[in-house]
Amino acid sequence: MPSLSAYKSGLDYSYAPGIFPSMECLLYRPEAVRRLLVHSSARGREGVGRLCALAEDRGIRIEEADRALSRISGKENCFAAAVFSKFEDLPDPDRNHIVLHNPGDSGNVGTILRTALGLGIEDVALIRPCVDVFDPKTVRASMGSLFRLRLRVYDHFEAYQEAYPSRALYPFMLDASVPLQEALKTKAEKWTLIFGNEGKGLPPAFARLGQPVRIESSDKVDSLNLGIAAAIGIYGFMFPRTP
Amino acid sequence: MPSLSAYKSGLDYSYAPGIFPSMECLLYRPEAVRRLLVHSSARGREGVGRLCALAEDRGIRIEEADRALSRISGKENCFAAAVFSKFEDLPDPDRNHIVLHNPGDSGNVGTILRTALGLGIEDVALIRPCVDVFDPKTVRASMGSLFRLRLRVYDHFEAYQEAYPSRALYPFMLDASVPLQEALKTKAEKWTLIFGNEGKGLPPAFARLGQPVRIESSDKVDSLNLGIAAAIGIYGFMFPRTP
Repeated sequence: MPSLSAYKSGLDYSYAPGIFPSMECLLYRPEAVRRLLVHSSARGREGVGRLCALAEDRGIRIEEADRALSRISGKENCFAAAVFSKFEDLPDPDRNHIVLHNPGDSGNVGTILRTALGLGIEDVALIRPCVDVFDPKTVRASMGSLFRLRLRVYDHFEAYQEAYPSRALYPFMLDASVPLQEALKTKAEKWTLIFGNEGKGLPPAFARLGQPVRIESSDKVDSLNLGIAAAIGIYGFMFPRTP
Repeated sequence: MPSLSAYKSGLDYSYAPGIFPSMECLLYRPEAVRRLLVHSSARGREGVGRLCALAEDRGIRIEEADRALSRISGKENCFAAAVFSKFEDLPDPDRNHIVLHNPGDSGNVGTILRTALGLGIEDVALIRPCVDVFDPKTVRASMGSLFRLRLRVYDHFEAYQEAYPSRALYPFMLDASVPLQEALKTKAEKWTLIFGNEGKGLPPAFARLGQPVRIESSDKVDSLNLGIAAAIGIYGFMFPRTP
């Protein structure tokens, strides 16, 4: 492997910056890890010690790489980063999914991946054009959650739909929508929640794909933040209120 | 008024950076606005034109201040900022409240203020030590929502409790807690939801103050992000599912 570049989307590898994201990568995608970078000043830190022990146990090379770490993370105090090969999975057809259509902000996508995993969703599709899910900023914002998800990026929504034809689709949008609490009353057994771009939302045609849903909210804000809307939507579908 | 400083918490004024936050400030806190700063290159922009018209209408001085704008916002492309006197309100005793206990991140607090307003909560208390709510970073993250809220900062939680004695308190924490969907079944009529610090959560003593609540979540993430947890909690309390 040549010397480490700053991250570019064309590379076939990326970085999980930080102790926690690196730990998730070593634990849940060990086959993808190429090496573990640690900062020379961090060897005594508890988290770094645990990372190194795990890497040794799995035969993963450990390297002191102070300059590479600050280049990758843009920070002076990044103590570790796993270097990993990019991977692709198929979402499980028997589980519930979320689809992020054209998300533009890596922090939002990272937060949504973490929220999804926290609320029990492990299958996620992204539709291009979208954030690079392997950008270290996304990895960091997800706190490494993406290593525990079955994640796939599609060129078009149609490609997702062909791969998963028989599911109830719930696009989150204003057009023709019903309030979330209404939609939950007749919720299908196997579903996909679809969330649009931060600024533009979903294209109007999505209203015909399934049951459009809106989150009840006041007209005093323009709209809820995408990560917030996704969290409320996922929570509602995952934890239906029992009477 | 002397020349404009970079923001410091000791000042009795602050800045609402950006067109949208400035507009919220002029619309909902006009009495607090001291002047409106605009960038020389932005006079022709639609949003800035509307801001200036509103300022003129209300007798607010408009100033071209390119250098002050980049100093305040830390960005080159900040086109406008309202300069406003800090204010303090009393939360309405007849409405539902949220309390943020020792929040440490201005982005989180801003997002929560915006979410709260979006979901219909207009009364918010913060307990010190906490983020400076008037820091331009908080103002920007709130998208100016704080200008539409009744917001007060208390030195201790006891001071909040003395001011609002007869309310049902729901601290969000793990100790002794019930799942959110359980708590909602017996939800009181007038309530306060309490959220702790990003890293440390709420002190254990809060478990005795009311009905502790936890958000149902997987053990696959450490915990949900504070802004996400607050959104799910507020939505649950504000939009109870009808059978």
